[in-house]
Amino acid sequence: MSKTLAIGPFNDAERAALSDEFSPVFLAKPDELAGLTDDQRAAATAVAYKGHHAFGAAQMDLLPNVGIVANFGVGYDAIDVHAAAARSIKVTNTPDVLNDDVADLAVAMLLMQCREMEQASAWARSGNWKSKGEYRLNRKASGGTVGIVGLGRIGREIADRLAAFKMDIHYFARSEKTTPGWQYHGDPVSLARAVDFLVIALVGGKDTENFVSAEVIEALGPRGVVVNISRGSTVDEAALLDALENGKIAGAGLDVFLNEPAIDDRFYKLDNVVIQPHQGSGTVETRAAMAKLQRDNIAAHHAGKALLTPVN
Amino acid sequence: MSKTLAIGPFNDAERAALSDEFSPVFLAKPDELAGLTDDQRAAATAVAYKGHHAFGAAQMDLLPNVGIVANFGVGYDAIDVHAAAARSIKVTNTPDVLNDDVADLAVAMLLMQCREMEQASAWARSGNWKSKGEYRLNRKASGGTVGIVGLGRIGREIADRLAAFKMDIHYFARSEKTTPGWQYHGDPVSLARAVDFLVIALVGGKDTENFVSAEVIEALGPRGVVVNISRGSTVDEAALLDALENGKIAGAGLDVFLNEPAIDDRFYKLDNVVIQPHQGSGTVETRAAMAKLQRDNIAAHHAGKALLTPVN
Repeated sequence: MSKTLAIGPFNDAERAALSDEFSPVFLAKPDELAGLTDDQRAAATAVAYKGHHAFGAAQMDLLPNVGIVANFGVGYDAIDVHAAAARSIKVTNTPDVLNDDVADLAVAMLLMQCREMEQASAWARSGNWKSKGEYRLNRKASGGTVGIVGLGRIGREIADRLAAFKMDIHYFARSEKTTPGWQYHGDPVSLARAVDFLVIALVGGKDTENFVSAEVIEALGPRGVVVNISRGSTVDEAALLDALENGKIAGAGLDVFLNEPAIDDRFYKLDNVVIQPHQGSGTVETRAAMAKLQRDNIAAHHAGKALLTPVN
Repeated sequence: MSKTLAIGPFNDAERAALSDEFSPVFLAKPDELAGLTDDQRAAATAVAYKGHHAFGAAQMDLLPNVGIVANFGVGYDAIDVHAAAARSIKVTNTPDVLNDDVADLAVAMLLMQCREMEQASAWARSGNWKSKGEYRLNRKASGGTVGIVGLGRIGREIADRLAAFKMDIHYFARSEKTTPGWQYHGDPVSLARAVDFLVIALVGGKDTENFVSAEVIEALGPRGVVVNISRGSTVDEAALLDALENGKIAGAGLDVFLNEPAIDDRFYKLDNVVIQPHQGSGTVETRAAMAKLQRDNIAAHHAGKALLTPVN
């Protein structure tokens, strides 16, 4: 009887590594828990979790002896940490190993939006370059003014990169941080008013829902570009769509959306939005590092050792 | 009779500014010089030049009193500087004001290639994200090893940016430069062998033709990515196409090609190449700054003052 359940869309490499180490029972989704036998559920002491389906009290109550839910990813908003804590279940995530990739994607989306690189590529590939000449002029990115919403570990990586593009860095955080002279704002409207580019690097979850509100988006103004690599929930998406459709802001670069992957079709009709399919951490190197950190947390739990990256 | 000829595809804003300042005669291409009257040609003392058509001895000999050919762009390989010098004609260009934009595009192409961002965008937009799930994993960019071929002003801007992506910076230049510990290579094959990413930031012209040779490309190896924002002529394009088509390198990000805009159609068949239509300096802000610097050089010449950015 396996001590480990692996729940979610693990890829082949991840499944193989989990199998080697734990011979787990694999489930595609949390609702398949109901299909396990009582003995299988009672035998489980650890869950390797991946995905965005909710994993809360109802699921935990099916697993009376689970002591850890080890999440694949830094964002663990799918897991109800309060419900876990109430049941003495530890939750772990995979921080830090993905910071570089997520920051890279944020910077690349901002550059692509300013420089209209997808459109310029299409211009060449469609034959327009040859038949009609140069692609239209677009917008300088370097030297711009950027606001980072949430100067945690990922926000910091983004700011460090954009500083090398000679950007004037502003940020919002719950409290002022030690920085190389970056401008702190205690509220996001003040931040948005001060900058042209707004990069959202908040944690997900209830506390940050719609944090980038209609008022923040309006304060950003018609030259504004929103970049989001956090969670779709951190932005008032209705207000964002309205602003993008009506020129209240200039554009966006978005890796995250509400209701992924069945996102609002209105995004696909906009040519001022760089759209990525939530692939911030989606490199071979980083996903391997995330998978290893998840397994190491589970192994530590089984061995009765200290967890590497607990969140509660 | 106008003292200034403006030759090339100037856009509306550039034409208006040139008209305000110099009331020039506008020509679309150098071969239209033959259509001017002898008096018009004799009256011309300055040429504002834009474009990639050759401007050499034959054109200069039609303009006996021209003392300056002011180029729009940092690369002046279209203009025969030796022929100009032999006729006491000064050549100016527009350096520095475009460094940021060109460096931004180089970095963005490298990130887009590694992270397969155009393909990931198409994956979402085509409905595959919704119907088939995540886009495939791709390649981490940060922390990579990059070689800059030509550590001039633009190469330096690129290196400074990539250093913020925690890249290990190597470079080729004619002589070792003062750097923050970057690794100097005296020959490009040694450089290519040491790195995964090769960014070409050479000047154009005869001296650098095919500088990135088949041997250099082979030394880069199957994980190699070539980024070129200099001139198509600096790379052995036949060798590059062969390497891209046959997996000898991993991919490329190219803003410049031979025979622009009628570039080799084989590039368009490759999905491992990010293609941009020579838009390195193509922002509203930077093109305005370039146009101003070109006009300021011409104004200085007409006023008998020192030129701002002479190249001979």
